[in-house]
Amino acid sequence: ELVTALEQLHTPALPALQGKTLLITAGPTREAIDPVRFLSNHSSGKMGFALAEAAAKAGAKVQLVTGPVNLPTPVGVERIDVQSAQQMHSAVMQRASAADIFIGCAAVADYRVAEVAEQKMKKTSSNDELTLTLVKNPDIIADVAALSYQRPFTVGFAAETENLASYAKDKLQRKKLDLICANDVSSKEQGFHSEHNAITAYWQGGELALERQPKTALATAILQLIAQRIQQQQPLP
Amino acid sequence: ELVTALEQLHTPALPALQGKTLLITAGPTREAIDPVRFLSNHSSGKMGFALAEAAAKAGAKVQLVTGPVNLPTPVGVERIDVQSAQQMHSAVMQRASAADIFIGCAAVADYRVAEVAEQKMKKTSSNDELTLTLVKNPDIIADVAALSYQRPFTVGFAAETENLASYAKDKLQRKKLDLICANDVSSKEQGFHSEHNAITAYWQGGELALERQPKTALATAILQLIAQRIQQQQPLP
Repeated sequence: ELVTALEQLHTPALPALQGKTLLITAGPTREAIDPVRFLSNHSSGKMGFALAEAAAKAGAKVQLVTGPVNLPTPVGVERIDVQSAQQMHSAVMQRASAADIFIGCAAVADYRVAEVAEQKMKKTSSNDELTLTLVKNPDIIADVAALSYQRPFTVGFAAETENLASYAKDKLQRKKLDLICANDVSSKEQGFHSEHNAITAYWQGGELALERQPKTALATAILQLIAQRIQQQQPLP
Repeated sequence: ELVTALEQLHTPALPALQGKTLLITAGPTREAIDPVRFLSNHSSGKMGFALAEAAAKAGAKVQLVTGPVNLPTPVGVERIDVQSAQQMHSAVMQRASAADIFIGCAAVADYRVAEVAEQKMKKTSSNDELTLTLVKNPDIIADVAALSYQRPFTVGFAAETENLASYAKDKLQRKKLDLICANDVSSKEQGFHSEHNAITAYWQGGELALERQPKTALATAILQLIAQRIQQQQPLP
């Protein structure tokens, strides 16, 4: 009886994740313009860190590739710090094939500056206007989803300010994701720097709305949904 | 004797600042591109916050106008949070004439995006390149230094990666500052996110090198120099 009680105490909330390897991205990326200036995106990293923490508590091996954020590393999580989208792409592609599940939660900059200045650009009275030429960054989640060998179950996030459902479903199809979590960031009540978030998850032939709740609780709900979707894709033998 | 001892205990390190009003800017500014993307500068805000804290401890009335940073407000300091350079300019100009001393320590973005998009800009397969047109932001410190009535003693900072002395002296003259603190940010040992910094201060006809030390100690040294310079400018009657 004592043994059973102890086992129950140690039973994780997400038994399906025990022993699985999760690769998660979080936070913004920073794209250098010169040594003092950069382009970036709003992202506190809280959602990605909450997912990493919940997965580690469930007994998963978790690698967290993160841009610059002010958050402590969750217990039991391996953290890899990066700055730019190119660095994040490289850190992810090195590890993606060893992962069972990839969750792209980072707010990756779509574009970087075409030519980074080595020294601080000087403002002069003559240049009242400045033109910055940007080029596309690699698409991390699409590259993971396109792996033909040892492809992890691939989950994306879509942060949008309008047309949430149609943009998210389009991204799911176009990038060949297994699941996408759509996030309305036009409200100050959720998303970005808030402790709360509400998302709607979409997959091929289904969707689930997860109402506004603390990001920690939402992380567990998302991981439960991922575990369910994996079981549906791979029926028991 | 007891009274004398108590008075000494309460004698601030910087008696000249007691009762003075200081207006200080700190941190970076963020210039929106659209609701999720922005331009910014590297700045932890630590130097400006250390100046505010040291001045408040010296008995000064301190107003701290700060961009987005992850720092607690020093005890006794009035904090005004802003995002963009235009917001910082407005917050400073409202308060500058009431200040005895203005210290522009913020890393203000020189340029902002000409047209901010109201909705998140969508990446499409057709736009491999993107051009961002930037326009000049108002020059906060030059506008304070140019006040013809109730102009505070005006101190600037110059963060440079090369030609430190010549750029700083040029900025001192061109913007008509009373003092400028030049900061070599090409080294990882100091500046930006470091707890340490070394600066060289320049004024009309003089300079002083303050060696690498914790930003808290450096803040006191800078305030002492400011107090000296004010006394030199305004000889005792």
